Amino acid sequence: MAVDLVGLDADDTLWHSEDGFRRVEAHFCALLAPYVGPDVDLIGALGATQVANLASYGYGAKSFMLAMVECALDLTGGRVAGSVLAELLDHGRALLRRPVELLDTVADTVADLHQQGYRLLVITKGDLVHQLDKVAASGLADCFEAVEVLTDKNPGTYAQVLARRGVPPQRFAMVGNSLRSDVLPVLALGGRAAHLPYPVTWRGEVVDHPGPVTVLDSFAAIPSWLAGLGG
Amino acid sequence: MAVDLVGLDADDTLWHSEDGFRRVEAHFCALLAPYVGPDVDLIGALGATQVANLASYGYGAKSFMLAMVECALDLTGGRVAGSVLAELLDHGRALLRRPVELLDTVADTVADLHQQGYRLLVITKGDLVHQLDKVAASGLADCFEAVEVLTDKNPGTYAQVLARRGVPPQRFAMVGNSLRSDVLPVLALGGRAAHLPYPVTWRGEVVDHPGPVTVLDSFAAIPSWLAGLGG
Repeated sequence: MAVDLVGLDADDTLWHSEDGFRRVEAHFCALLAPYVGPDVDLIGALGATQVANLASYGYGAKSFMLAMVECALDLTGGRVAGSVLAELLDHGRALLRRPVELLDTVADTVADLHQQGYRLLVITKGDLVHQLDKVAASGLADCFEAVEVLTDKNPGTYAQVLARRGVPPQRFAMVGNSLRSDVLPVLALGGRAAHLPYPVTWRGEVVDHPGPVTVLDSFAAIPSWLAGLGG
Repeated sequence: MAVDLVGLDADDTLWHSEDGFRRVEAHFCALLAPYVGPDVDLIGALGATQVANLASYGYGAKSFMLAMVECALDLTGGRVAGSVLAELLDHGRALLRRPVELLDTVADTVADLHQQGYRLLVITKGDLVHQLDKVAASGLADCFEAVEVLTDKNPGTYAQVLARRGVPPQRFAMVGNSLRSDVLPVLALGGRAAHLPYPVTWRGEVVDHPGPVTVLDSFAAIPSWLAGLGG
């Protein structure tokens, strides 16, 4: 059965994102280092705060901003200077306002897939407002049938996306930079999926490889991969 | 043309919400009052921060938490104690974890509408994760065909909800506590809408009445209102 519905992850698949979070993390470390001993793992503490908050906050830049403030207060016993917190919030807001920078070959390849008649979805997590803003700013919105912002990417949430469209998993393919979120749950459902690694992956998305998966070396490789899935 | 698709707002229509935000605002005022002169309008300053951030943050409890931190830093020139910020964040998290308290007659009426064969949607703004959590916790999820979490409620976003289902506005009715978000944009689109006031309305949702609108005095009045819209 040929694939006609294609899901594309957004952050770090269509455009740069994680690199910006990493730059803000570096600011976080530089600003908090004077308050804590040299043995304190600031990155680890921030990551632990993010993970602890996931269930109630979800993903995205606002959750990250709240985690930085909380973690800074915790690590310093409330002694962190207000000016430091204000600077952390400024960096967080800059993430929300960051212009969309498409990854290489994305613009041409998405247009090509659209012209070939594939139904294209953006399937992403994170802030609803921020993700829709980025799709609008990407210049690619007209190529996409819809933008699905999910609370989490698992077999159940993918199944809902497909059920709403009456598409069986065998006719669906997903591409993204996260094995955990973009590849494994779709394979578990009986769909097709390919991994398109980004140079930086958030720790929360890292999983062990369970077995061989398709890895693409460039976004431009998607059309020939899809064509090869055949009928 | 008879109405068969019914949209229900969530916060302050299905369950209590704004009263909780107001209680946290009262804590904000009590905690910040010692830092500022008696002439400072703390509620006004917090509201202004929320409105200034709407475009990048959207609605919901996380945006409210960030606004409290930002506003506290601004009002005090960064001198606010870390313990105060931690307490504000605790109050915000309590909003996210607040058990769902359905408004009077909601449970029976939603079940009744579902049994009568109306297609029911929850149509709301706010945090995607938080809103879906609340629907799940409400015990009413099985009565709803879908939950639509919109970035904003305007004629364009309502039109998208209807277009996805192939339903013309004449067959759609909306009920909610906000004239600005639940009633006026639906009427502008050619749909039916009724206002179900909640005792407390966020300032950002207050608009002047443009003319006569249908006002219901109870959630339990929805079925007979819908029946009266007739064929």
